[in-house]
Amino acid sequence: MTVNDGLHPERCILVTGGAGYIGSHTSLQLLLDGYKVVIMDNLINSCEEAVRRVVDLAGKQGENLLFYKVDLCNKAAVEAVFDLHQFDAVIHFAGLKAVGESCAKPLPYYINNILGTLNLLDVMNTRNCKKFVFSSSATVYGQPESVPVTEESRLYVLNPYGRTKLQVEEMMRDITAADPDWRTIVLRYFNPVGAHPSGRLGEDPQGIPNNLMPFVQQVAVGRRKELTVFGNDYDTKDGTGVRDYIHVQDLATGHSAALHKLFTTPDIGCTAYNLGTGKGTSVLEIVAAFEKAAGLKIPLRIADRRPGDCSVVFTATDKAGKELGWKAQNGIDEMCRDQWKWASNNPNGYRPVQEQPIDLKAVANGNHEAVMSKDIVV
Amino acid sequence: MTVNDGLHPERCILVTGGAGYIGSHTSLQLLLDGYKVVIMDNLINSCEEAVRRVVDLAGKQGENLLFYKVDLCNKAAVEAVFDLHQFDAVIHFAGLKAVGESCAKPLPYYINNILGTLNLLDVMNTRNCKKFVFSSSATVYGQPESVPVTEESRLYVLNPYGRTKLQVEEMMRDITAADPDWRTIVLRYFNPVGAHPSGRLGEDPQGIPNNLMPFVQQVAVGRRKELTVFGNDYDTKDGTGVRDYIHVQDLATGHSAALHKLFTTPDIGCTAYNLGTGKGTSVLEIVAAFEKAAGLKIPLRIADRRPGDCSVVFTATDKAGKELGWKAQNGIDEMCRDQWKWASNNPNGYRPVQEQPIDLKAVANGNHEAVMSKDIVV
Repeated sequence: MTVNDGLHPERCILVTGGAGYIGSHTSLQLLLDGYKVVIMDNLINSCEEAVRRVVDLAGKQGENLLFYKVDLCNKAAVEAVFDLHQFDAVIHFAGLKAVGESCAKPLPYYINNILGTLNLLDVMNTRNCKKFVFSSSATVYGQPESVPVTEESRLYVLNPYGRTKLQVEEMMRDITAADPDWRTIVLRYFNPVGAHPSGRLGEDPQGIPNNLMPFVQQVAVGRRKELTVFGNDYDTKDGTGVRDYIHVQDLATGHSAALHKLFTTPDIGCTAYNLGTGKGTSVLEIVAAFEKAAGLKIPLRIADRRPGDCSVVFTATDKAGKELGWKAQNGIDEMCRDQWKWASNNPNGYRPVQEQPIDLKAVANGNHEAVMSKDIVV
Repeated sequence: MTVNDGLHPERCILVTGGAGYIGSHTSLQLLLDGYKVVIMDNLINSCEEAVRRVVDLAGKQGENLLFYKVDLCNKAAVEAVFDLHQFDAVIHFAGLKAVGESCAKPLPYYINNILGTLNLLDVMNTRNCKKFVFSSSATVYGQPESVPVTEESRLYVLNPYGRTKLQVEEMMRDITAADPDWRTIVLRYFNPVGAHPSGRLGEDPQGIPNNLMPFVQQVAVGRRKELTVFGNDYDTKDGTGVRDYIHVQDLATGHSAALHKLFTTPDIGCTAYNLGTGKGTSVLEIVAAFEKAAGLKIPLRIADRRPGDCSVVFTATDKAGKELGWKAQNGIDEMCRDQWKWASNNPNGYRPVQEQPIDLKAVANGNHEAVMSKDIVV
């Protein structure tokens, strides 16, 4: 690893889950910003090809990236990486993230998302590495009572996935309050969509997608027959649900802004920021924008509302704007353009052929390989 | 270990934290009820002498007890014990429990109480051992809005200790809802006091006690000069705070009742029960009862109210009475009588001389010995 002469010489950031959707885009952004980046990822819901492409896209800065295949549930492996690097901060993306699956199989969610995080925090604490950006989610607001959602809106969660996010937030508030050396920023993402403008990085969900955009994409590339729209009788402009979609590239710059804030604000404590555009977009508007970007028609099927879904969710953007100096730059047209470029260039995601879905039992049992690349074995 | 011919032949119960205050009394009760008992305890806030006394007090049934010095943070050690025994159920007491300390050092609380529990649940799940009694606390009700507190009262917590209890409760609700093979009973204790009537088992807090009764006891035996009473201007009978004290022997029979309920109720799901007497007792009433039992005077000092303390807390007892067929048998006089017998017979608790307070850093780092007794090494 060479020392770069960019904006952040010598600063080395650990990115857990850096091979995943938001993690890969953020890792690329950090490299371009001049950071050194070390990725830890267990690759159970991501793949090393994403990391290779991050290196490519970073050009000369790609030399500043290292990747370790490590499961955070294996504390000895985490410690081994900390033995090799002095991290200035950690951005913690790693975790399982499918709401429906978390209801069916909560234990692996608690083990991966909570136990894994506690191993990481324990090692960080021991090594005196106490700057932390945590990937949370708008899901911690449950069904918001009013919009826009602000960072002070009521927190309550409706499923085990959301609970893992809220529980880590609670832990971080306590840990940061007790020890002023800790600096924590919690980022609550609204609905991440889109892909890197090159079309080389994007979301590659295994199994059935959980969110609207990957569904639209799979219909567009012919992997699914039609898009099911759940409810067209909401009290919204066109009757379909309204959400706050945010381009993954804007999330990447949001993480970079959060990192800057951490380094420059000793009294940040544990502070949460919503990351969204502040604009609500309906399902039918997304479909129309995607059809325009792709130049094709998305067949729709209208179904009943899903229990638990609410009609309109979007965020206030004031706090992130004022305190992080960050604002989303991309609108729905850019999101769909880049989503389609990724989709059409990579109809099977990062994999040349379709692989098996993840074996959650194996996840629950923690019996993943702990062997890391770069000649490190624990 | 011999197979007993009592009420529960062949049934083997894992008791984590079985060397602790409530754990030791419950382990004795289970032995007398005819269960086989295996204790796992890391002994960081308890000692093996308590286990030896349980064996003594159990008489012939003492043969049915095994003890392993195991920290739940060491998953391999937990697995090694499960390799040797087939458990029919687990009663999970193990955890750190001092509110004030949890505010000052939350990370070890999350690691011991959450990570330790997740290791245990993961191993239980893998071995198909899915009957679980969890030690929770009335602390999950925060400052109750009204009394009596029922199991449906609002849950919210005021400190990291309470948060670890509530988070495990939340996990258990999700895990039990997703897999009908799991049967979980959550027991929310009010204020455990008293000791075994023999005077040979009791509470042996390290460092400064957190609760009223150990303070009273330490003043009585001359280890402290006076008892500080926080607030005598509450809207109660004598101006001091009112709580629901419960004899530890009643808690022990409460756990036995919960275990019986687990074995006989396939659809128990995840059910919570409050364990208390249903009676409120003021600080001054406790002091008077203790003075009567001990035949001495407790010097008092009145101080300001503590922020966060509420005036009156006591529980409803209907649910535990009806569904567990359990009711507390001991009143405040028995509690003070047995507390005094324990105190006067064991002025230094289980230890002949005073030892150092626990090193929480060592706890946080998980670097406890994993070596177990009974010739088992992992």
